[in-house]
Amino acid sequence: MTEKIRIAILGYGNLGRGVELAVRQNPDMTLVGVFTRRDPKNIACTAQAYSTDALLEKKDDIDVLILCGGSATDLPEQSPLYAKHFHIVDSFDNHSQIPKHFAACDESAKQSQHVALISTGWDPGMFSLQRLLAGCILPQGQSYTFWGKGVSQGHSDAIRRVAGVRDARQYTVPVEAALQRVRTGENPDLTAREKHIRDCFVVAEDGADTARIADEIKNMPGYFADYDTFVHFISQEEMDRDHSRLPHGGFVIHTATTGQANRQRIEYSLQLDSNPEFTASVLVACARAAHRLAKEGQYGAKTVLDIPPAYLSAKSAEELRKTLL
Amino acid sequence: MTEKIRIAILGYGNLGRGVELAVRQNPDMTLVGVFTRRDPKNIACTAQAYSTDALLEKKDDIDVLILCGGSATDLPEQSPLYAKHFHIVDSFDNHSQIPKHFAACDESAKQSQHVALISTGWDPGMFSLQRLLAGCILPQGQSYTFWGKGVSQGHSDAIRRVAGVRDARQYTVPVEAALQRVRTGENPDLTAREKHIRDCFVVAEDGADTARIADEIKNMPGYFADYDTFVHFISQEEMDRDHSRLPHGGFVIHTATTGQANRQRIEYSLQLDSNPEFTASVLVACARAAHRLAKEGQYGAKTVLDIPPAYLSAKSAEELRKTLL
Repeated sequence: MTEKIRIAILGYGNLGRGVELAVRQNPDMTLVGVFTRRDPKNIACTAQAYSTDALLEKKDDIDVLILCGGSATDLPEQSPLYAKHFHIVDSFDNHSQIPKHFAACDESAKQSQHVALISTGWDPGMFSLQRLLAGCILPQGQSYTFWGKGVSQGHSDAIRRVAGVRDARQYTVPVEAALQRVRTGENPDLTAREKHIRDCFVVAEDGADTARIADEIKNMPGYFADYDTFVHFISQEEMDRDHSRLPHGGFVIHTATTGQANRQRIEYSLQLDSNPEFTASVLVACARAAHRLAKEGQYGAKTVLDIPPAYLSAKSAEELRKTLL
Repeated sequence: MTEKIRIAILGYGNLGRGVELAVRQNPDMTLVGVFTRRDPKNIACTAQAYSTDALLEKKDDIDVLILCGGSATDLPEQSPLYAKHFHIVDSFDNHSQIPKHFAACDESAKQSQHVALISTGWDPGMFSLQRLLAGCILPQGQSYTFWGKGVSQGHSDAIRRVAGVRDARQYTVPVEAALQRVRTGENPDLTAREKHIRDCFVVAEDGADTARIADEIKNMPGYFADYDTFVHFISQEEMDRDHSRLPHGGFVIHTATTGQANRQRIEYSLQLDSNPEFTASVLVACARAAHRLAKEGQYGAKTVLDIPPAYLSAKSAEELRKTLL
């Protein structure tokens, strides 16, 4: 047995807990520790918990640092910073900011000769990879991405900021009719409203004006105004009982015509009971690839589009050819 | 505009014609010629047709040679042979012989410092890649591959060898109930019979004993005996009218549990009006990757599991990050 890949986690929210679970499903890896801004004494996890301040001291014990913070404020700062000292993997998912994030991580990782594998997960990540593959195989075609049914944390948070809202959960739901139109290969132009429905479950404060809350949600620009939005008021008990999980998923569908009139369709879909545990599983496979790249002496920022897929696997190239090809 | 990638085709059957069509859909490529064992005067194609004997003379005009022969007898000989002189791409699909084919191509390609990108297409090829990705992300899960609905050339040929059969077309059809059981995540053990139906359309010679033909087909070991096989006798007119196309497709479904009991499902599917045109489209994208690897000075045998996905694309890494990630 070769030595296990030593993983450390920075940030212990849903994603960090998912990474902890995923490492246990990969026998070629071991979890060195969980690093947190909170008091490590209050963290209940299977590995040792440490304060973030202790991270640099543990540098020699860590092969790959998996960053489990958020894309809004944590990762833009943490990824370039920690790429100076570690091979890192992150799931930065603010699509429009990826080129900027890549550049910052690349500069930092190149200077210190580390690997920074960024924007992994499923979108960006596996969905990006599928869009790339489909578009390369069938270049005269069109790709469509649908998300859901699943919980959007950003949209749930937006509802919680409405006055009178105590708790909220927003499900993004793909419109079945739009999926079917795409699958037939008609290449429709679809508006945001035609692609997804926004289904909102809201716990209102006692005595709050639910009509006003529903109206504010439905007309919120950037989040709900461009969609058919449904608002359901429920009790906190119902919320806790029926909406405590974080399912998600989606579809990448690519259709094209080859030759005279031969229609070709590629479809990739995910159906996930737990979005953070799946994203974490991608991060962990990517950590293996980052470790492999680092051992080869490669460095700089990378994305899943740059990695030989075999590097995600613990198996040898021979075994993969024999068993999977 | 950078110089176009100069493609040559060896073998002008369904696959070769598909490559000719696919090259036209990729503006960064140009077709140098079609090389055939038949008399080139009898070949009607958009590019110049040459005798196979002329291939070596044209060496300096060809960046990548796409081998479009069959896996039974052509490719085991041609791929190692032509990898001595060209960067090649093939779609060798005899799964159990892939390690041997890889070794032969690797030796030949390494000696002459060429790239031999083998066993591309969709299975092996894109399906292999999906099995790899899914298994790396969710290692404690199970992958299932289903084929169809589509025409199996090998099974159609097997029927044509039965005495009294004039023409035949065999459709491999996935069993819907099995697909559903797999999707639920119950990880069933499925026999060949439980996974696929074999649906056969047969034109019998005048006066042939159709009961005997049906019986011989249904009991043919290796091809039909292990399946629920249906035999339909039709006229040559019906065959020509209803069964002249070569549709195919299939599913790679991977299910797993993460954490306590969160079920996660990844599904990749193809629905193809034309199997050879789709396979050809994969070959052509792979030719671009082979060219890129060659320009980097890499050589030896490779498979789709070894290639950075971005190498399949004509676009720059920056553009891919900006538009697809």
